[in-house]
Amino acid sequence: MLTNTFSPQVAALIPMFYIGWSDAVLSPSEVLLITNKINAFDWLNNDDKLLLSLWSDPKNPPSDELMSEWLRSMKDAAINLKSEGRQSLVSLGVEMAKTQADDNTWLTQDVIDALSDLENVVGLASLEMHGHILSHEQIAKEREAVLNASNVNVNALQHILDDEYGDIRQKVFKVLHDPMFGLKTIRNKEEYREQVLKWCKLIADQGFGALHFPDQFGGQNNMGAFAAVFETLGYHDLSLTVKFGVQFGLWGGAVLWLGTEKHHQKYLKDIGTLELPGCFAMTETGHGSNVRNCETTATYNPETDEIIVNSPTISSGKDYIGNAAAHGQMAAVFAQLIVHGENHGVHAILVSLRNKQGVIEKGVKIEDCAYKLGLNGVDNGRIWFDNVSVPRFNLLNRYGNIDDNGLYSSPIESSSRRFFTMLGTLVGGRLCVPRAGLSAAKSSLTIAVKYALKRRQFGPENEPEMLIMDYPSHQRRLMPRIAKAYALDFALTYLTKRFSERTEEDMREIETLAAGLKSEATWFTSDTIQACREACGGKGYLAENRFADFKADSDIFTTFEGDNTVLMQLVAKGVLSQFNKEVTGNGFMGIVSFVANRFVDTVREKNFLNTNNYDEGHLRDPGFLSDAFSYRLQDLSVSAGQRLRKFIKKGFDPHNAFLKCQNHLLEVAQAYVDNIVLQQFIAQIDRCQDVKVKKTLKLLCDLYALHTIEQNKGWYLEQGCMSGSKSRAVRRLVDKLCKEVRNDALCLVNAFGIPDACLAAPIAGYS
Amino acid sequence: MLTNTFSPQVAALIPMFYIGWSDAVLSPSEVLLITNKINAFDWLNNDDKLLLSLWSDPKNPPSDELMSEWLRSMKDAAINLKSEGRQSLVSLGVEMAKTQADDNTWLTQDVIDALSDLENVVGLASLEMHGHILSHEQIAKEREAVLNASNVNVNALQHILDDEYGDIRQKVFKVLHDPMFGLKTIRNKEEYREQVLKWCKLIADQGFGALHFPDQFGGQNNMGAFAAVFETLGYHDLSLTVKFGVQFGLWGGAVLWLGTEKHHQKYLKDIGTLELPGCFAMTETGHGSNVRNCETTATYNPETDEIIVNSPTISSGKDYIGNAAAHGQMAAVFAQLIVHGENHGVHAILVSLRNKQGVIEKGVKIEDCAYKLGLNGVDNGRIWFDNVSVPRFNLLNRYGNIDDNGLYSSPIESSSRRFFTMLGTLVGGRLCVPRAGLSAAKSSLTIAVKYALKRRQFGPENEPEMLIMDYPSHQRRLMPRIAKAYALDFALTYLTKRFSERTEEDMREIETLAAGLKSEATWFTSDTIQACREACGGKGYLAENRFADFKADSDIFTTFEGDNTVLMQLVAKGVLSQFNKEVTGNGFMGIVSFVANRFVDTVREKNFLNTNNYDEGHLRDPGFLSDAFSYRLQDLSVSAGQRLRKFIKKGFDPHNAFLKCQNHLLEVAQAYVDNIVLQQFIAQIDRCQDVKVKKTLKLLCDLYALHTIEQNKGWYLEQGCMSGSKSRAVRRLVDKLCKEVRNDALCLVNAFGIPDACLAAPIAGYS
Repeated sequence: MLTNTFSPQVAALIPMFYIGWSDAVLSPSEVLLITNKINAFDWLNNDDKLLLSLWSDPKNPPSDELMSEWLRSMKDAAINLKSEGRQSLVSLGVEMAKTQADDNTWLTQDVIDALSDLENVVGLASLEMHGHILSHEQIAKEREAVLNASNVNVNALQHILDDEYGDIRQKVFKVLHDPMFGLKTIRNKEEYREQVLKWCKLIADQGFGALHFPDQFGGQNNMGAFAAVFETLGYHDLSLTVKFGVQFGLWGGAVLWLGTEKHHQKYLKDIGTLELPGCFAMTETGHGSNVRNCETTATYNPETDEIIVNSPTISSGKDYIGNAAAHGQMAAVFAQLIVHGENHGVHAILVSLRNKQGVIEKGVKIEDCAYKLGLNGVDNGRIWFDNVSVPRFNLLNRYGNIDDNGLYSSPIESSSRRFFTMLGTLVGGRLCVPRAGLSAAKSSLTIAVKYALKRRQFGPENEPEMLIMDYPSHQRRLMPRIAKAYALDFALTYLTKRFSERTEEDMREIETLAAGLKSEATWFTSDTIQACREACGGKGYLAENRFADFKADSDIFTTFEGDNTVLMQLVAKGVLSQFNKEVTGNGFMGIVSFVANRFVDTVREKNFLNTNNYDEGHLRDPGFLSDAFSYRLQDLSVSAGQRLRKFIKKGFDPHNAFLKCQNHLLEVAQAYVDNIVLQQFIAQIDRCQDVKVKKTLKLLCDLYALHTIEQNKGWYLEQGCMSGSKSRAVRRLVDKLCKEVRNDALCLVNAFGIPDACLAAPIAGYS
Repeated sequence: MLTNTFSPQVAALIPMFYIGWSDAVLSPSEVLLITNKINAFDWLNNDDKLLLSLWSDPKNPPSDELMSEWLRSMKDAAINLKSEGRQSLVSLGVEMAKTQADDNTWLTQDVIDALSDLENVVGLASLEMHGHILSHEQIAKEREAVLNASNVNVNALQHILDDEYGDIRQKVFKVLHDPMFGLKTIRNKEEYREQVLKWCKLIADQGFGALHFPDQFGGQNNMGAFAAVFETLGYHDLSLTVKFGVQFGLWGGAVLWLGTEKHHQKYLKDIGTLELPGCFAMTETGHGSNVRNCETTATYNPETDEIIVNSPTISSGKDYIGNAAAHGQMAAVFAQLIVHGENHGVHAILVSLRNKQGVIEKGVKIEDCAYKLGLNGVDNGRIWFDNVSVPRFNLLNRYGNIDDNGLYSSPIESSSRRFFTMLGTLVGGRLCVPRAGLSAAKSSLTIAVKYALKRRQFGPENEPEMLIMDYPSHQRRLMPRIAKAYALDFALTYLTKRFSERTEEDMREIETLAAGLKSEATWFTSDTIQACREACGGKGYLAENRFADFKADSDIFTTFEGDNTVLMQLVAKGVLSQFNKEVTGNGFMGIVSFVANRFVDTVREKNFLNTNNYDEGHLRDPGFLSDAFSYRLQDLSVSAGQRLRKFIKKGFDPHNAFLKCQNHLLEVAQAYVDNIVLQQFIAQIDRCQDVKVKKTLKLLCDLYALHTIEQNKGWYLEQGCMSGSKSRAVRRLVDKLCKEVRNDALCLVNAFGIPDACLAAPIAGYS
């Protein structure tokens, strides 16, 4: 008997709902089928139908308590079943109904037929789910086999990669597995955009778009979970990923972070459900990276109490704006805010673009960006405003307000600091983009590894051809990149944690971290997909094998959310200002402590510099590896800092001094990123309790670190901190580690946890 | 008066034909217009019409003698013109007619109107030509301006790059400029394929497809000119380039090089005109690079005197075959030839695929490869043969024949040598592919340079934003690649010359050269297009700016016509066998001479090793540069050879010994290619007479060479033949040379000679 009182009719349906929800998510096709069937049942009254439709809402899954109660009562009811009947959800449902009421005359053969029909229909929808479960079983079996032959614990590794977001990832995978998400080649952009919009709505229906919003707007205040969804969508279709990011991350993020309570109340809920598609209109044609100098103006008119948004020139058009060409109804427009003739710098203002029917508003001109290299499922466009008036309400006023008297005020005095604070709140995009890129790189590595383990070519005379995986050149292509995928994953998880737990003082460092890791991970993405495409030869060139879209779609990742080369300069500035702070922050004592630190380093360097020690134990010692990385960072920083100071002393203005050292500074940034990535890898190993798993992680970490040293051997040799013999020993050891990792390669890519259905590349199968 | 007797009616038309042919080529639109108009003139008799239609045939341009005669008689006739009439082709024509006959009553006002109409129509067709001339004028003017401000002689440089193929390139550009070749986005593959077929026919109509054929089949025996056409088509659309290569280079090449007189007589003419579209069916699904082990069989049946072609397994299907999915009527099928039970190795056999109506022949199964990453205008497919019988005639029997008695014979005893000889004749493809890749890279560099010279971003406080070209990081991205584009161009021209003048003994070396340069140039292509796309930021991602197609289409160049990694192993084998020949060829004396040579090298090395000399004069000394390159090649070869020998001595079979040293051998191959490229660059400079041009070439060569040394500084430092200070000096010098080349960048890309209409990227314009 159920604790809550349900009608026997509802009780009869509980087993089906329990099974439907048992993997914690109802896919859109299931919801549609269940709702349609239930509404047609004349033996249900309206209250029952309302209750059941609530239970079918993917945004409101039944609570754990309710699920437990269902399970308990199902177990109770099952006792009454004959053993041969126990399999049927219908017969179980009939028993459930009987526990709720004595009179069950409503339970006619027609009703039982209807229940069976529903079971079948859910079963039909679950044909795919069945396949899903099956393929999971197959994967599990297959993994078991490999697991037995290997020392790698796939599940434990996957668990570490998943961090705390394994559940949300599985939910997303379940939804993506719905037949509605079947991948097909859509070449026409209009058609593709509609498909992506439809997908995005289905994703929003699951509540995934609002995860980073506060509870009252359908969210969970959980940026980490939002990033995990973004990342997981990257296994499916990157147009969907980017559309999702534009709508919920950028557009939603602008309202959330730059707006105040009144804007949240009015818009956030509709943004999270995609009722209100919108744009993040920052970039201008003439000012790609240089947002601070954008030309669009927002002039306050005290007479009408309105703000007039205007694009004075062609080059001030907002360019490349996602959601602009077709679907966006509103935009957060970044513009120079002018109040009573004074320019207060860049602020965001809400402007309507289209009405619900898609008719473009007066004064707004929109142009389609047309076909792009990739991401053709995203409707990018250009927008110009011809003196469009909006109410003062529309100023996103968290960092700059116009009060009822028409006076401007801001909690941040300095307009420069205000600008960077506003931009800083939007750093979330730089958290998400590299993760989706990493998804594409992981998919590519998985496909390439699986192909290399079945493709044979050439071999010794009179013997079968060799697996291409057994060629050292092939191992060199794939193994260091597998190791680096793990390395970057841990670093990005660290970045997300830092962002989630951020304080005001942390922001500068987090921005530096985000800029560096975004650049590193997206360059890695382009490079890895390319290497994997080439590693699969002509097969890799066929669209069906996925590299085509991965390559084309992710190519812009090195440019958007901040051009990598521009970002790496920000990183260098961040590193050097930190360095300067250490030196000058505490006056004389600061300098003393800096010199003391340098002295400590020198002692440690002696150990690291041990140029003629090149046995494996030394080369794989975490102390040696992390000293090698941090020494490179310090040495490059010190010399860059000295050069910069020299030019400043000579009278160069900061921009030009910076320019003189630009290539040097980019190296500082690279050394900083490498160092962070290694540190986080080592920290991850330290946290790991399982000896076997620790060993696997150590192997990957060593390959990552030594391969990075090898790539930079020119610098180490130039500085005289590595002998030629040591450098050659590093190369030999990298070869050896590649071979070791090759034996675990299948396990290591399996631990990425990408379902075969998401991978979807024929050459990755075992056919 | 004309020497030849033409009717006055024909004479009246001569001025228009002269002008039409004056740039040596009639574009397809012009031909169509002229032919239609002339056929409608009732004042021309049929003989005249026949003659004029001959004169309109782009495959048979009027001879130089005829053109001279026309010109002379036009000048004569012009004397009779009043000065104000001299401009009109019609009045000149009337004078020409009068010189041929006294009775000109046929010259009514109607006829004169018709002539004027024709003049207008040709003028109309030339609206584009007019634009073409105009834009040429603009380019000329603009170049003049830059030329005056720079020390670079653009025309002289372009002339050097053009080598002896400037004329044929201009002819191709003229055709590509025809409105029929307008670029538009075609996303649907069927539609795109038809467009490309149509283009390819127009190109064939110009006789470009048969240039490498003997005279009697419409050709000029000119492989160099054929390669120049292939390369020039690479500026337009790479699907067209590849379709052209498949039809005329691969399919035509197979019949030409592997067939004999009887096959030439029967097929070559129709292949050259695209009357007979065909396939080169070599690659198999299961055997991409390993052609020698392909599974398709061709079994001679003495009873019917036929050959039975069969695909025994799914994996023996011919894969990725261009022209297969839609247009191919015949194929040269590579198969194991079995005669009386004996396998004579791989031979090519002609098999019909479709009839003229496109109906697929019995026993043939064809599958579409569907969408690919790029080249979607090429109809790649898979082909299986189910015991298809063809006459014995269809064996391409140059290197292996079955005589009337059903007996097999070959001019080459060893089946291994026979196989490599057959493959060697097909090396033409490896000549062409890297050149088309280089075209795409040059287009990309041109677009990126022109954009960087108008795009501004950031700058010193209170000053205008800076040109992005003035950022050192941007110069580092583009300048070394411009230098390398020149370097590779010269090397590829050298390769084409070597191939054109080849002897039997040269072939081994030419194959090594072709394999190495194909790999180097196509990797350079992928890398350069990517760098240029990123250098243009978001603008580079828009399809209209061309990188999208360049990237996608050229991506497979690293794989087809031989996978680069496989080819580089062939290169290493070629280099080492050359090295072995030197050592072992002359027995003991060989070894002595080798040791002596090594001694000489050691002396020279001393000079090169001058590790502490790092003034600019030393670093830019061609002696230092070429010693540095050749030393790397020699040292890597010697050590790889020693390692190989060690493994062979230990009892490894050659394949496995090779495998143990694979990564080392790939470095040998790379050093060989680098060395060839530098040698050819230096040779090019030595040939140059003009002091100013020489200086420009020297600057580019130094940047190429020093940048290559910098990329390999790890190796040089490891070997102890460069000090850290010298290595740092190289880096500083590369920075400096990048800045110098930056000043000439526009001239240097202009000298690539790509017409704006071909470039077609809006961001490359001055708008």
